Amino acid sequence: MSDTSSASPPYFASDNGVGVSPEILAALAAANEGAMYSYGADAITARVERRLSEVFEREVAVFLVSTGTAANALSLATFTPPWGAVLCHADAHIEKDECGAVEFFGAGARLVHVAGARGLIDPQALATAAQMNKGDVHGVQPACVSITQASELGTLYSRDHLNEIGRVSRAAGLTLHMDGARFANALVALDVTPAEMTWKAGVDVLSFGATKNGAMGVEAVVLFDPAKAQDMAFRRKRAGHLMSKMRFLAAQMAAYLDNDLWLANARHANAMAGRLEAGLRAIAGIEIIEPAEANMLFVRLPQATIDALLAQGFRFYSDRWGSGVIRLVASFATKAEEVDAFVAGVRAAV
Amino acid sequence: MSDTSSASPPYFASDNGVGVSPEILAALAAANEGAMYSYGADAITARVERRLSEVFEREVAVFLVSTGTAANALSLATFTPPWGAVLCHADAHIEKDECGAVEFFGAGARLVHVAGARGLIDPQALATAAQMNKGDVHGVQPACVSITQASELGTLYSRDHLNEIGRVSRAAGLTLHMDGARFANALVALDVTPAEMTWKAGVDVLSFGATKNGAMGVEAVVLFDPAKAQDMAFRRKRAGHLMSKMRFLAAQMAAYLDNDLWLANARHANAMAGRLEAGLRAIAGIEIIEPAEANMLFVRLPQATIDALLAQGFRFYSDRWGSGVIRLVASFATKAEEVDAFVAGVRAAV
Amino acid sequence: MSDTSSASPPYFASDNGVGVSPEILAALAAANEGAMYSYGADAITARVERRLSEVFEREVAVFLVSTGTAANALSLATFTPPWGAVLCHADAHIEKDECGAVEFFGAGARLVHVAGARGLIDPQALATAAQMNKGDVHGVQPACVSITQASELGTLYSRDHLNEIGRVSRAAGLTLHMDGARFANALVALDVTPAEMTWKAGVDVLSFGATKNGAMGVEAVVLFDPAKAQDMAFRRKRAGHLMSKMRFLAAQMAAYLDNDLWLANARHANAMAGRLEAGLRAIAGIEIIEPAEANMLFVRLPQATIDALLAQGFRFYSDRWGSGVIRLVASFATKAEEVDAFVAGVRAAV
Amino acid sequence: MSDTSSASPPYFASDNGVGVSPEILAALAAANEGAMYSYGADAITARVERRLSEVFEREVAVFLVSTGTAANALSLATFTPPWGAVLCHADAHIEKDECGAVEFFGAGARLVHVAGARGLIDPQALATAAQMNKGDVHGVQPACVSITQASELGTLYSRDHLNEIGRVSRAAGLTLHMDGARFANALVALDVTPAEMTWKAGVDVLSFGATKNGAMGVEAVVLFDPAKAQDMAFRRKRAGHLMSKMRFLAAQMAAYLDNDLWLANARHANAMAGRLEAGLRAIAGIEIIEPAEANMLFVRLPQATIDALLAQGFRFYSDRWGSGVIRLVASFATKAEEVDAFVAGVRAAV
Repeated sequence: MSDTSSASPPYFASDNGVGVSPEILAALAAANEGAMYSYGADAITARVERRLSEVFEREVAVFLVSTGTAANALSLATFTPPWGAVLCHADAHIEKDECGAVEFFGAGARLVHVAGARGLIDPQALATAAQMNKGDVHGVQPACVSITQASELGTLYSRDHLNEIGRVSRAAGLTLHMDGARFANALVALDVTPAEMTWKAGVDVLSFGATKNGAMGVEAVVLFDPAKAQDMAFRRKRAGHLMSKMRFLAAQMAAYLDNDLWLANARHANAMAGRLEAGLRAIAGIEIIEPAEANMLFVRLPQATIDALLAQGFRFYSDRWGSGVIRLVASFATKAEEVDAFVAGVRAAV
Repeated sequence: MSDTSSASPPYFASDNGVGVSPEILAALAAANEGAMYSYGADAITARVERRLSEVFEREVAVFLVSTGTAANALSLATFTPPWGAVLCHADAHIEKDECGAVEFFGAGARLVHVAGARGLIDPQALATAAQMNKGDVHGVQPACVSITQASELGTLYSRDHLNEIGRVSRAAGLTLHMDGARFANALVALDVTPAEMTWKAGVDVLSFGATKNGAMGVEAVVLFDPAKAQDMAFRRKRAGHLMSKMRFLAAQMAAYLDNDLWLANARHANAMAGRLEAGLRAIAGIEIIEPAEANMLFVRLPQATIDALLAQGFRFYSDRWGSGVIRLVASFATKAEEVDAFVAGVRAAV
Repeated sequence: MSDTSSASPPYFASDNGVGVSPEILAALAAANEGAMYSYGADAITARVERRLSEVFEREVAVFLVSTGTAANALSLATFTPPWGAVLCHADAHIEKDECGAVEFFGAGARLVHVAGARGLIDPQALATAAQMNKGDVHGVQPACVSITQASELGTLYSRDHLNEIGRVSRAAGLTLHMDGARFANALVALDVTPAEMTWKAGVDVLSFGATKNGAMGVEAVVLFDPAKAQDMAFRRKRAGHLMSKMRFLAAQMAAYLDNDLWLANARHANAMAGRLEAGLRAIAGIEIIEPAEANMLFVRLPQATIDALLAQGFRFYSDRWGSGVIRLVASFATKAEEVDAFVAGVRAAV
Repeated sequence: MSDTSSASPPYFASDNGVGVSPEILAALAAANEGAMYSYGADAITARVERRLSEVFEREVAVFLVSTGTAANALSLATFTPPWGAVLCHADAHIEKDECGAVEFFGAGARLVHVAGARGLIDPQALATAAQMNKGDVHGVQPACVSITQASELGTLYSRDHLNEIGRVSRAAGLTLHMDGARFANALVALDVTPAEMTWKAGVDVLSFGATKNGAMGVEAVVLFDPAKAQDMAFRRKRAGHLMSKMRFLAAQMAAYLDNDLWLANARHANAMAGRLEAGLRAIAGIEIIEPAEANMLFVRLPQATIDALLAQGFRFYSDRWGSGVIRLVASFATKAEEVDAFVAGVRAAV
């Protein structure tokens, strides 16, 4: 675990505001030896691809890119025709935080909202949405389902829930995509295998995130069926997402997987979020809106308390989820003392 | 200068096959301290933006991205409507090596070739092309000119040539873009200032490359007129090119500019290319197709010589420019001994 | 008024299932004399453009196209950047019946739903939606508002309602588009002038429909501010919507406007819808879901009654708006006897 | 044959500047009887689809649209991925006269020029181009070949030439598209069957033009392999090219095919072009640049002669093909007296 955040005030705004795991920084330095063919024709990239096949217990096609938006948009564009629809929750990252990337990569494909409590798609609502406009030339055609695990609200699809989403998607002939920007946090929280949380549940394509969990900037598109791999290769290149010095994306991912760094980082982040929740629950007048199923929780505080905390230098977002609701995100770099300081700060301010 | 390539056989295939300048690696480690707001709202990014304004002696808007293709496509899409044409040389990187990125980012804009010797656009041919279809609704409308400095053939636009291209572009109301993937190599070869090689010559938007000259993966779009900066911000985000941990792109660029590392790296690369040329010129039966104006040269060798060199482990591309023509690219990491070994190898094989 | 539908069973499925006004057919024949320059450089097209300026009491730019989808998508793409959002009702034609045309023409722009009763946007909800993601690079940016007059539910924006929508749009800096596929039906129902129902209320661009009200296939995009006219000209051409023998689109539109045929056709259609409503209201057990404000109404009938009517050859859509709800559309060609036959049929079947 | 152009001065500017065959006008009137389901679910459309299957001696899928640009762009977009290239002649209509429609419909696909004399692709050059960038992720991938029959220079692919183009395309795995805006003119000139000029020669998809040969505005995309028919249906709709009152496109096409009107119109146009050529050949000092293989020829005249002819009211284009070169296009409506008047005019002016 890193101790990079020691100097600055406790930061719970996001898990992408902290730095990089020392192991990953070290891997970048190690990868700097000698010349290698570029654009992925190097040994480190080859090793990462093999490694991910092992992790997922299946031959997979892997495309490393530097952002989650790229991973999501490439995944969905590859499986959605321009007249297609991607069924997703209204709170999905692809809907709220990617400035229309799916529409751009998908040549005008459309996002269609599917309801569900706590940021999670309801299977029954999905089954209904999947039949929308079926074969009617006047309407966009459902092509993909995109779920986020862990979700934007920090909630989790249980294994049963996932299987049900997979079953409904398959029955309707839809491709199932998982936005796994916080894949590791969900995985260790559910205590399942990567295979169980993906293709065994019906997931066809995964955005396997690493950046939020300790990498500098690398995500892998993982295709469980490699039939579309060639298409995706062209899409990645023409989107400017084929890195020339690919070895440095690969080195990050390799170090992320080596010695289960990714799982350790995620367990730590989740534990810190749990510690936050436990600490806050002990304070009267605090409402836990969404508990910390993974590494994030939502809490309602009096506005005066929020103002006081911000004034003390604590960093978190407070203006996006309704009056008095704040989001707290823990990361691999969060320290127990930071959590305790925050809880103490809240207690003092309330 | 780096000595990263010591272990592997001499590599002249490209300047993106070598690693990263040690100074830049060190900067990544240094940037890893503490939490910072993401997506560019950090102090390192702010510093890079100021620094580039100083380098160019003018207030500029800066957009850091991780690849040259992204920088080029964002630049051109921002200034070309979907029915517009980008006038470029048939050998341009945007034409031959980006898999249609300009067409993708530009919603179907078209590349139109303008002739010119040695990979450089001829101003007279440009003046003619600029009038193509003018106001005719049936034809695409010239909107941008894109030049590559140094060019894909390693040649350079002289200052006069540049000024003339700028003059013709302005007269026709076209935006002038420079693909500066090898900007530094051209700059030091011409011995001009960054301002002279860009906006003083009429360049409106620049892809300021760093990756090929020692960075890990960072390029800056530099807008000399910030009027389009907001549009570009949205375009960058929806293309998946807004890095969350932006500080690490910024740190690379900062180190690249600090202490004139970029100029030193480029001077070294150019010198190594010159040394290659000088060595090869001294061997009978070798034809220098394009001399080393910057850090690259094209040479014609007997096929048996090419085969022998490849068999010895020398790495270069030989199958793309006609029979017997090879491309040799030197980089910041190329060592004099490697050059001398290669020249000796050619001499032995001829 | 036409009597073209005499032979076939009464048809209330849509106002685009009937033929063409005889006056418009005659105009096509009259336009067939002699050779004329193509693509709109003919005298009939020029006359239509002048005529529409008169109709709207203002200099307008006019683009004739052959479908309403083309008119809507061209209008919205011209005023919405790829990262922009079009605010519209969830029941809008552009949302439900154009298979993603706005997203296609708009290079991936997004439709965002704004709530409102009876198929009409609520101004307060619009004011809120207009602030969505404002200036936040992570979210799509509201650029246009699109309203449908008459709406897809056959309802009308009153003059006050329109003015309020216009006021909110202007205040938020949004372009206001009106889908006027049934413009004439709304106009005569409200008894206002074309200017009052458009630019005087804040409408910037109008899809002025004629096809549903007696033309063969012509709609006009009417730009109240001609600044974007050149852009739209290129967009129309590259979308394949610039007709070579343009005179035949123009002739339809000219005949449509001449002698106020358009107003007479619309008054007739509205009267027939009113007659339908009056007839049905007199029957017990029939629920009028949406009254006939223009030329369309929605009615709830027992399923057995629906089945009986369809079996008798009456034509209407019944399976899109929930259990037992049918849509009845009257047109310029609907005859009073057809209405009476239908009402009698319902009475008998109930 | 029509005599619609009697009143106006002889018109040789294009075959889309004349009106409509009387038979086709009459068919529009006949189609106006009664109500029919819209969007192609009518009996006339069904009949046209069957009729085209007969004409081509094979089951085909048919998509009626109102412009040739739409037919071409839909055809090519359906068979070209966004990273694909369409191989075409530099003089192709899709290249010079459609304002980037292929790029628009094709989500950024690229046109790549293939050389060949007289506006016709050379098979050997095609074979070379077809291998361009093969499997290289950095370059666009050839997907389609598009040929124009008759070509934009009025020249024809002979049957052998066509077969060779078909053979090369198939061997390279490319889809072969024919832009048949002047299909009928080519067909009667070559005296082959529609099947021989298309699928028997390897054509996969055809833009079957009617507008230039007597229709008001209708073209048919003809798919010889219906596998892509469903995709094309969605593409047509979202491009705004699905006409609601489809019967009126279908009626035009039906009348065009009935009683071989299309062949008679084309034979007349070709004969008039031949008469023009014969008349002009008899005049000293006139150079026939491209003879009248179909219904068009290119001639070089002294500029003073051109000016004199234009001053007399003759209409033709003269400013697009180099100094002194004019294009003369005959149509179904061209009269022998008009031809003779023009020849006399030239003789007098020279």
